[in-house]
Amino acid sequence: MDLQDDFVKRMIEDFVPIHKFLGLQVLDIKKDYVKVRVPFRAEVVGDIRSNRWHGGIITTVMDSVGGIVGGTHLSSIKDKMATIDIRVDFLSPVHGKAIIVEGKTLRLGSRIFVANMKCWLEEDPNKEVLAEGRGVYNFIRLQKG
Amino acid sequence: MDLQDDFVKRMIEDFVPIHKFLGLQVLDIKKDYVKVRVPFRAEVVGDIRSNRWHGGIITTVMDSVGGIVGGTHLSSIKDKMATIDIRVDFLSPVHGKAIIVEGKTLRLGSRIFVANMKCWLEEDPNKEVLAEGRGVYNFIRLQKG
Amino acid sequence: MDLQDDFVKRMIEDFVPIHKFLGLQVLDIKKDYVKVRVPFRAEVVGDIRSNRWHGGIITTVMDSVGGIVGGTHLSSIKDKMATIDIRVDFLSPVHGKAIIVEGKTLRLGSRIFVANMKCWLEEDPNKEVLAEGRGVYNFIRLQKG
Amino acid sequence: MDLQDDFVKRMIEDFVPIHKFLGLQVLDIKKDYVKVRVPFRAEVVGDIRSNRWHGGIITTVMDSVGGIVGGTHLSSIKDKMATIDIRVDFLSPVHGKAIIVEGKTLRLGSRIFVANMKCWLEEDPNKEVLAEGRGVYNFIRLQKG
Repeated sequence: MDLQDDFVKRMIEDFVPIHKFLGLQVLDIKKDYVKVRVPFRAEVVGDIRSNRWHGGIITTVMDSVGGIVGGTHLSSIKDKMATIDIRVDFLSPVHGKAIIVEGKTLRLGSRIFVANMKCWLEEDPNKEVLAEGRGVYNFIRLQKG
Repeated sequence: MDLQDDFVKRMIEDFVPIHKFLGLQVLDIKKDYVKVRVPFRAEVVGDIRSNRWHGGIITTVMDSVGGIVGGTHLSSIKDKMATIDIRVDFLSPVHGKAIIVEGKTLRLGSRIFVANMKCWLEEDPNKEVLAEGRGVYNFIRLQKG
Repeated sequence: MDLQDDFVKRMIEDFVPIHKFLGLQVLDIKKDYVKVRVPFRAEVVGDIRSNRWHGGIITTVMDSVGGIVGGTHLSSIKDKMATIDIRVDFLSPVHGKAIIVEGKTLRLGSRIFVANMKCWLEEDPNKEVLAEGRGVYNFIRLQKG
Repeated sequence: MDLQDDFVKRMIEDFVPIHKFLGLQVLDIKKDYVKVRVPFRAEVVGDIRSNRWHGGIITTVMDSVGGIVGGTHLSSIKDKMATIDIRVDFLSPVHGKAIIVEGKTLRLGSRIFVANMKCWLEEDPNKEVLAEGRGVYNFIRLQKG
């Protein structure tokens, strides 16, 4: 699998229903690193008084990004990652603007994969981290040989 | 605030954009306890091969439910809960059917609130817990006096 | 392995250095359930002003208890559990008295094991939970066949 | 409080019973940053077959380090930090050698403090992170004015 291939990006963006709904775009993908952009849309708001992202939607993106980072170690499109647990610290409010979520490998085992994810506003030149998450995943290899 | 009031339920269901999108229904709400139902819809799928709920969307519902449980201790509609951190263990796959998410108070302080949430399939008579989450929240009281 | 066997209890209590140091006693052990008692000792204090247990020591006991719960599913003394991650919510201060820590299975897979642990003061008839933890473990089977 | 003061270091090392037991040494302490060294001792072992640190003891050190990092923002010796929750990912086994644990501020609020902690072997020139933790704390200011 050539990770820089447009086909891989398109699979992630278009064939995962929640990604398609959110309009998730893969900006960068390489071994142990993934960066995505998600535009703001009104449905992701958790509180209309503040017009901020619902933390669960940020968690959704982080969970996906962590899984994709782990996926850079899968050899077949039939293999997959299953999330064992996810944890997110919400450090500052995330205002209603496009976000960037970046994921990196923290631990790579034969069965267990751990990724760390950070989120910031696309428009912020300082990339201040507004939420940071950790996901633990199970490698599920459906295909042998 | 009378928690059993239809007005409170309608606020939660209709005035929170992500709840409205998900079609979240409040089945029960009382001090320290909230139960909601969320119908399945195609957009929440994380993997079309398995047609299961994306864990992040379950986390979204859990985060909301925990906040609503904490909200049963707020006296003004202007006060609110802010999530400090959330953690979810995904115990079994959650198939594409309506889910029930239940939340209970674990710790109630003057500033810190912790809730525990469980998720199962509505159609499962045994209510086997498929995901269990924990949220830590900050009470933000906007109105004094 | 007969779990109720004194030999198993003695192994846990005497052959694990940190258990021996803490004076951990196995009160009950059966499939998917373990209960231990740990006496208070001056060295476990985190703040002399309050004379309370350091949360990390409670975490230590919880981590062990979770591993022992998982261990009730191991068939050989050569197999073991490795902690992938642990999380503890400290709900109330734990005063300088003997504690009880109880662990139960939350998820049992072929490779992944998740346990939930609760801690209360031995002297408290209401068993008010002062700390609650979750541990995710890897089954490591050293012996095949 | 002058953080570089030997008095502050001595307070942390000698007046906290669990630190004294572990032999924790403060190598560096400044606003938002703390680094400690903890020598190995036989009592911290969780499994004599492997002679490794029990993860709970590493968590104990991380919890303390996070609290000390938060403490660099306290103005009075009577104020303190209380841990709300702690989470640690154990990335690789920690062999029976002296460890270094480093903590940094992740979020600084008026009431909530979040720190990130990393652990590696003192003898490892590459400082490979063997465990990474996150602690959420409550500022408790006992003294007013």
